[in-house]
Amino acid sequence: MPAYSTNMRLKFPILALVLELITIILYALFVSYDDGKSSGHHGKDNSSAEHSENPVALYPMFQDVHVMIFIGFGFLMTFLKRYGFSSVGVNLLLAAFGLQWGLLLQNVWHLEDGKIKVSIEKMINADFSTATVLISFGAVLGKTSPVQLLIMTLLEITTFCMNEHVAVTMLGASDIGASMTIHAFGAYFGLAVARVLYRPGLQNGHENNGSVYHSDLFAMIGTVYLWMFWPSFNSAIADPGTPQLTAIINTYFSLAACALAAYATSSLVEKKGKLDMVHIQNATLAGGVAVGTCADMSIGPFGAMTIGVTAGIISTLGFKFLSPILESSLGIQDTCGVHNLHGMPGILGGLAGILAALLGKKEEVYPGMQAAALASSIGFALVGGAITGLIMRLQIWGQPSDQNCFDDSIYWEVPEEDEEAAENLTHADHSKNKAEA
Amino acid sequence: MPAYSTNMRLKFPILALVLELITIILYALFVSYDDGKSSGHHGKDNSSAEHSENPVALYPMFQDVHVMIFIGFGFLMTFLKRYGFSSVGVNLLLAAFGLQWGLLLQNVWHLEDGKIKVSIEKMINADFSTATVLISFGAVLGKTSPVQLLIMTLLEITTFCMNEHVAVTMLGASDIGASMTIHAFGAYFGLAVARVLYRPGLQNGHENNGSVYHSDLFAMIGTVYLWMFWPSFNSAIADPGTPQLTAIINTYFSLAACALAAYATSSLVEKKGKLDMVHIQNATLAGGVAVGTCADMSIGPFGAMTIGVTAGIISTLGFKFLSPILESSLGIQDTCGVHNLHGMPGILGGLAGILAALLGKKEEVYPGMQAAALASSIGFALVGGAITGLIMRLQIWGQPSDQNCFDDSIYWEVPEEDEEAAENLTHADHSKNKAEA
Amino acid sequence: MPAYSTNMRLKFPILALVLELITIILYALFVSYDDGKSSGHHGKDNSSAEHSENPVALYPMFQDVHVMIFIGFGFLMTFLKRYGFSSVGVNLLLAAFGLQWGLLLQNVWHLEDGKIKVSIEKMINADFSTATVLISFGAVLGKTSPVQLLIMTLLEITTFCMNEHVAVTMLGASDIGASMTIHAFGAYFGLAVARVLYRPGLQNGHENNGSVYHSDLFAMIGTVYLWMFWPSFNSAIADPGTPQLTAIINTYFSLAACALAAYATSSLVEKKGKLDMVHIQNATLAGGVAVGTCADMSIGPFGAMTIGVTAGIISTLGFKFLSPILESSLGIQDTCGVHNLHGMPGILGGLAGILAALLGKKEEVYPGMQAAALASSIGFALVGGAITGLIMRLQIWGQPSDQNCFDDSIYWEVPEEDEEAAENLTHADHSKNKAEA
Repeated sequence: MPAYSTNMRLKFPILALVLELITIILYALFVSYDDGKSSGHHGKDNSSAEHSENPVALYPMFQDVHVMIFIGFGFLMTFLKRYGFSSVGVNLLLAAFGLQWGLLLQNVWHLEDGKIKVSIEKMINADFSTATVLISFGAVLGKTSPVQLLIMTLLEITTFCMNEHVAVTMLGASDIGASMTIHAFGAYFGLAVARVLYRPGLQNGHENNGSVYHSDLFAMIGTVYLWMFWPSFNSAIADPGTPQLTAIINTYFSLAACALAAYATSSLVEKKGKLDMVHIQNATLAGGVAVGTCADMSIGPFGAMTIGVTAGIISTLGFKFLSPILESSLGIQDTCGVHNLHGMPGILGGLAGILAALLGKKEEVYPGMQAAALASSIGFALVGGAITGLIMRLQIWGQPSDQNCFDDSIYWEVPEEDEEAAENLTHADHSKNKAEA
Repeated sequence: MPAYSTNMRLKFPILALVLELITIILYALFVSYDDGKSSGHHGKDNSSAEHSENPVALYPMFQDVHVMIFIGFGFLMTFLKRYGFSSVGVNLLLAAFGLQWGLLLQNVWHLEDGKIKVSIEKMINADFSTATVLISFGAVLGKTSPVQLLIMTLLEITTFCMNEHVAVTMLGASDIGASMTIHAFGAYFGLAVARVLYRPGLQNGHENNGSVYHSDLFAMIGTVYLWMFWPSFNSAIADPGTPQLTAIINTYFSLAACALAAYATSSLVEKKGKLDMVHIQNATLAGGVAVGTCADMSIGPFGAMTIGVTAGIISTLGFKFLSPILESSLGIQDTCGVHNLHGMPGILGGLAGILAALLGKKEEVYPGMQAAALASSIGFALVGGAITGLIMRLQIWGQPSDQNCFDDSIYWEVPEEDEEAAENLTHADHSKNKAEA
Repeated sequence: MPAYSTNMRLKFPILALVLELITIILYALFVSYDDGKSSGHHGKDNSSAEHSENPVALYPMFQDVHVMIFIGFGFLMTFLKRYGFSSVGVNLLLAAFGLQWGLLLQNVWHLEDGKIKVSIEKMINADFSTATVLISFGAVLGKTSPVQLLIMTLLEITTFCMNEHVAVTMLGASDIGASMTIHAFGAYFGLAVARVLYRPGLQNGHENNGSVYHSDLFAMIGTVYLWMFWPSFNSAIADPGTPQLTAIINTYFSLAACALAAYATSSLVEKKGKLDMVHIQNATLAGGVAVGTCADMSIGPFGAMTIGVTAGIISTLGFKFLSPILESSLGIQDTCGVHNLHGMPGILGGLAGILAALLGKKEEVYPGMQAAALASSIGFALVGGAITGLIMRLQIWGQPSDQNCFDDSIYWEVPEEDEEAAENLTHADHSKNKAEA
């Protein structure tokens, strides 16, 4: 532990402050306010009077996305019994840094008068870029230090911006709800990192890698907020008018149908037909992921519901059957099961987009470009994640020992009584660990 | 327990999937997107440029209502010490199915080109229809299986849509915040179901029919969200402009005044003048229910506050004095006290609407029609609830035994340590139950 | 305890009901609905078509502020292990009364046709006025009775309205996010009250003046909501268009930068480099406070970030080093550390405003007037707080004994099992207290 302490004492605050200072300098050089003269990302369809007249028209949408990022992702990960401080706290840290970094990198490709002019839409996109990091955070949750995670944030957002530039700007793919560029990307990036950081010592589980009753309820706060506001995620930057309405409606129905499918499948596959909180917390959301790419396409409410049901079933089956295999056979330890919530449903979303393009559900969208964007997203994710994992594995970043995984108390002052109570509850295990250490 | 397990293992998932598949087929046949050509529910007063120009103008209101349905109702019911998974989880399940079903049945009366064209306003109404089910869920909370509750959802929303058609479309009553058609209806429907499902074995209480400290705090999340967003509930589908603003203002002040009255009354009636969490969690909201019918009428802020104070007092007194009598004398076991939060305040709202009509507070609103709508709502609720209760009572739906009431662990995988801890805490009671069984 | 009980039994409900009845009578005389003919607070720059056409255009902003007041402040204070009911419950009570009282007093200076015509903007300002009380509540949290707090609400909002009139209307200072008039004012008012109510008996701490693991997670709900919606707080009543957009962007970046600084500083100053939940829950928000005064000025995103970083560092250092000194040397017992979150960052905001005025970052804003407004805010706060503290100290208001501080169970019915459990956990301390009593 002394080794770690020294690291935390100096490396974490220095890294955080240096990153922030560099960011402020870059902002001083390159970032100013939107002056209403911007042509906008979606210039081709900016006929709507709304967006140009009122620069804060998108603000309610932005706040919904903001809630998803900070409450949704943050609390979804509080399901672990002794890792709630890190889940919601480090989530806030990474997203707060990520949005500053993301806004820079996303817009450095098209400066106006040498400046990035911040608008609500750019803020939404900045929030989006952090989602990739929070998804990957789920894969490595409990097994990485804040220093490692800040480095991952820096590298993953950089990779994300490169892939987004390739997939959306260069290939011209349509991915309004970002099934491919955020969800599949974030999942496979995180899984690649997790693979590189594989811990044989955890293959028989860890006493703290599980929930208690109230931690599962905290996690449901995250789940329900993600579920409710996903229509905002998928429609926030859609073209105003009918496309935005379509994205809202498709996501609303996909999620509703997905919820039924997740509950049914969870009961089907569990012994005695009981529901599993892990499935309900996650698989109910897969419909939001999977309908993302074609959210603004006229696939019809029943098309959206079909995608939702499929995603709910696949996701639940993934938690039950695939995750254990990935861990035992491939050495991929995926704490939150992001492969099941973001990985497979993200691919499903990409495939649905290809199909919708084939069926002509949106103009100027081509199946080949959609497929290329899907491949690009997974490719950037796997390569970028592997490289990032190798960098994160360096000794100097203070990765926690197996024994200290899933435990807030190495990074946080934890209330004393609890520590005692927890110690009593798991006395045998603690003794064992101490003996091993 | 084996009997139940078999049921859950097959009946629940099959029922959920069959309902979802039927719904998808009906949506494929009948549901498409709003194309902006709709005349709208409130055709007479659609002069506002807003709604026609921007199809997502109502979206922030929708999201407020959405939060009330999924966070508000869901967490309000987590006050029970061992039933939080079911409260927030089954709330999500029922509302997710209910909104799909409600959107179909509410709009089947007036198809356009043979289709239901989904708009944000229709999504709001669909969410509203699920509120009736969630209110009734509160009456039978802890005593019914998910299978029974899915059946209740199906039947209650169907009954609700019939009554809404009678009360609003045929009688022309004004009920913008739905004191009568949602709150009184949902409460009396639930109470009728609870009466039919009366459990003599629970008349001396149940060890798990109570709260613990943190479960009461989770419930306050629900309370506060309902309290904050109730102005959106009562104004979401009001006519744009002044009526919508009036509905917001009236509900804001009614709730503020109601809160003071609920706190004062709670302290007055409790021994030693202490506050009771049950009152605070519920009676503070009665002002939102009671001001619903006349929310968009010019009753004046002080009129709204008077309604709020009255509702807060009545609701608190109901929890303290009436609920025990209803249980002991009439065999109505109302877990959440929905009679006090939705039943009596709903009737108060209906009566206030009659009075407001008499005083000419809104044009084209007539006291007789208001009274008829109130009677219709209660009549449909009691008859529909009784029939639904009889159907729910059938053995095949796997109703839990008295002993298993108020306990997540028969439907959910519950973290092991907690089960042990809970067992230790209540060891004596558990032993007693086992002896009885 | 009997003495208190008698008080609670009669004084609290009578006071609450009398205050509410007086309020209703005043509303009957003076308050009506906005009829769209109002000239508005910000008449000079009301050229935007938006606000005049749609009277509910500001409603989403209002709801964000509403969430900050009731969820944000309410849950932020639930960090205490046995005081969660009071934190979120009394927060609701005070804010519900405060908004009614604030709306009256804020607008009594400029009646229209003898009436206050309620609009969404006036509702936002009413919510704002309650924020001062909730900040002061944080300073005296756990040490005051509901009766005392209702009196504080009455007097503090009255003082706030006087200072607001002086600082904004008379001096013409610009304080769009209210760093001076709400945050510094609320903090120093509360600190003055806390000083007058100084309890020597608590100078060695109190067993219940601390958190447990899950109470810290509940508090993070408050923190994250405040953090997310602070841009709405600082921009809600800004002039439409560019000033409002500027306020949103500045606050967004100030908070993001502040979060990094708070995390880094917390780790730097804690032994072993661990993070402290108290810092994270509070100091991450200091950037929102400090950027308030100049939120709508063109200070540039990097200017906002610089303010945020400074605030995050100052606030964290205040918790670590200054608060213990204030308590030991000046007898100021500041339960939540409002001096660190609202006091110093509020002053920083005022100073930043003076500097921005010097640099000409907003038209018609003058350094001297800004400085006078800052002095006025602190002056009114200290004098008003001291007088209010003297009134609150009167025996008749039932102030709790030292022993009963930080304990819900003297004002609330607390679930029995918990009381036992808590008693067991802290058995030794309880015995000691009883011996002392």
